[in-house]
Formats: sequence, structure tokens, C-alpha cells
Amino acid sequence: MRIAVLGTGGVGRALAGRLAELGHDVTVGTRDPAATLARAEPGSFREWADARPAVGLASYPDAAAGADVVFNATPGDATLDVLAAAGAGSLAGKVLVDVSNPLDFSAGFPPTLFVKDTDSLGERVQAAYPDARVVKTLQTMNNSIMVHPESVGGTAFVAGDDADAKAVVTALLAEMGHADVLDLGDITGSRGTEMLLPLWVRLMGVLGTAEFNFKIVR
Amino acid sequence: MRIAVLGTGGVGRALAGRLAELGHDVTVGTRDPAATLARAEPGSFREWADARPAVGLASYPDAAAGADVVFNATPGDATLDVLAAAGAGSLAGKVLVDVSNPLDFSAGFPPTLFVKDTDSLGERVQAAYPDARVVKTLQTMNNSIMVHPESVGGTAFVAGDDADAKAVVTALLAEMGHADVLDLGDITGSRGTEMLLPLWVRLMGVLGTAEFNFKIVR
Repeated sequence: MRIAVLGTGGVGRALAGRLAELGHDVTVGTRDPAATLARAEPGSFREWADARPAVGLASYPDAAAGADVVFNATPGDATLDVLAAAGAGSLAGKVLVDVSNPLDFSAGFPPTLFVKDTDSLGERVQAAYPDARVVKTLQTMNNSIMVHPESVGGTAFVAGDDADAKAVVTALLAEMGHADVLDLGDITGSRGTEMLLPLWVRLMGVLGTAEFNFKIVR
Repeated sequence: MRIAVLGTGGVGRALAGRLAELGHDVTVGTRDPAATLARAEPGSFREWADARPAVGLASYPDAAAGADVVFNATPGDATLDVLAAAGAGSLAGKVLVDVSNPLDFSAGFPPTLFVKDTDSLGERVQAAYPDARVVKTLQTMNNSIMVHPESVGGTAFVAGDDADAKAVVTALLAEMGHADVLDLGDITGSRGTEMLLPLWVRLMGVLGTAEFNFKIVR
């Protein structure tokens, strides 16, 4: 499957690397590929990408235009800007997997949520790109667990208005090892999973690790 | 242990019944005991209490005054009124176990939260009764699971400023069968667990049952 991963940070790298390893045709999207590759310090995207020659790099619109499935792996406060750069035309008809959280660090730590309770970032993305088929998923766990859930287990939630898009995403989740995928219904299900983040941040503090996950036992 | 349970609804009955069964001296608190006992229809508190003669019934202040540990098992939008009726004097020095959620049903279903993100109902209770030792716990699961967690398992969170009070509550949780109690630190930990409720409500809808629980796998 042709997959674009928008975002060169930790979440983007984890997803792009794992999906390429599983045999998909993966292109990472960034604002300015030349600028991204110009930085070659330890820990840079360039260093990461040099070790993964199968993963492509392209501008946001080029990456999205060439893909069947587009992952948004950008910070929540950058998400709508990045999707605007990708362009509605490139996103139309695509499965748009939203892995962002509406975290607001403007008042320091812990972050608050800049949208919540009666709306969500997943809904805002769907409203801004009505021709994309948005599926909210995976943003309730650390990126290490997103791509290797067998490490601790837990539940992956999916929410979205398009059943076929959710089926595509659920199949990708299964490929990555997710044994418990729970369908929360339409995109308004994003509210509950985004509102998990304050507890997630608190747990990271008290447990001293991000290697944990939410599991719905039933 | 002398325990008061404020609230005659499903949560109050579940906790009072189970704690009495475990051998504690339990008194349920209500606004007007005579009025509560005057209603004897099927499903009434009177019917429930007649089957449990060991459980006492008293006014909010009398129930709280006679107890070492006070459970607030009232709806979130009634909590501060009920605690005011119990009185600061009756609550001073007591372990006050807050099992409420700040659910706002004024716009229908699903409920929203009337406090969240930068504050919580647990914090408001502690701020209103600085001499009480508030511990937020159990309100992330259905009352059936609060008192018989072995049915599905899961994690019980505790948050509060007083370590001794959390130890008392943790021991009561263990008596009820909670095998995984996770200390979230001070009372601001209430924010994250109260913000689980939107997902809890959503899950009840998609799963068609309240017999599930959150488990932190790690």
C-alpha cells in the first residue's frame, strides 16, 4: 500500500519505519525536503533516513498526492497548518489517519487540551477536509507501542465516519501487531480518546516511563 | 472501621452493601432519613435497606460525624451541596473518599464535564474542605466493578494530598478485591481520571454494557 506519513518527529519515524518494514511503499512528508535533509546532526531525520533507504521523502503535497493512506503524525497545534500545506486536493478521497493530540504547552507542563469535551481535533480535521476519510487512532499510546504493541499489550481505538476507511486502518493496525482494536463509532469518538491524554501524561510521570498503555478489559 | 456513605443511589448502595458485608460499621447518609424511608416502592432505598439490617441510615451530618471514613457517592452536580449539608465540622480530619464525576447532563446525552483540564471536582472538594483528607478513586468504573473488581479486572486509581489517607483507602480497595491500585500522586491527579468519563460513556454505548474497566498495562 502507498502510505504517506506527514511529520518527521518521533511518531512519524516510528510509523514510517515500521510500515516500510512491513513492505509498504512509504514516503515521509515534510515542509521542505531540502531543508530537512540539510540537517545531519546526530538524531536528525537525515541520520534516521540514511539507515532506511526504502523510505522516501517528499513535500507535504507530493507525499499525500502519491498515497492511498495518509498518516498525520504532526503535533496537534501544527496539524491543521500541515494539512493545509498538503492541500485538500491531495487529501480528497484518501484515508487520513489522524494520530495527533490537541496538546497546549503554552502554559508549561502539564499541557492542557486546546479542544475538548464538546469538540475534538479529529472532528476539526474531518470538518476541514470533508472529502478525506478521517480515522482517529493510536494517539493514546507512546510511539514505541503504536508500532510494537506486543511489548505491553493494550487497546487501539478507532473512530471515524467511514466504515471502509476504518477497515483499512484496522488491517494496518493488525499488521503492526494490534490484537485488540476497538471501534468507537463515528469521528466524535475522538473526544474521549483525546481526553485520555491528561491521564496519560500523569501516568508517564508517576510510572517514570512511557512504556504503558490503556487496555479496556471486558 | 466506621464508614459513612453519602448517597442512596446505585453507587452508594453498592459501596455500603459491600463494605458492611466485609464487616465494617456502615451508615448511609441522606438529606432526610424519614423521607428516604417513607418511599417503599420496588427499587427504593427502603426495600434495599430492609434486606441489610446491619447498614444504618442517618442524616448527612450525623452519618459523617460518626465515621472515620466518609464516601461521597453522590452525583457530581450535587456533591458540593451534599458536603455542605454534612458540614465542615463533621468532615474535618476525616478520610473523604470522592467517587463523584463532574457530569453535566443539562444539554442531554452524552454528558459533558462541568469542570476539567485545569481543575477537577476532586480539587474543588479538597479546596472547599481543607481539613478533610480527600482521596479521589473508583469513579472510573461501574459500581458493580467498584465492589467486585474480580469480575473484569482493571486498575483503580487513587489521587490525594494525604499519603496516610491514600493508604487507608488502598487497604479498603484491597479488601474489596482490587489487585491493581495505581497512585497518581496529589489531588490534581483527579483531572485525568475525571476526563476518562467521556470515553467511558462512549464505550458503554459501543460495547452495550457497563461491565468493562480501564486497565493500565505496563
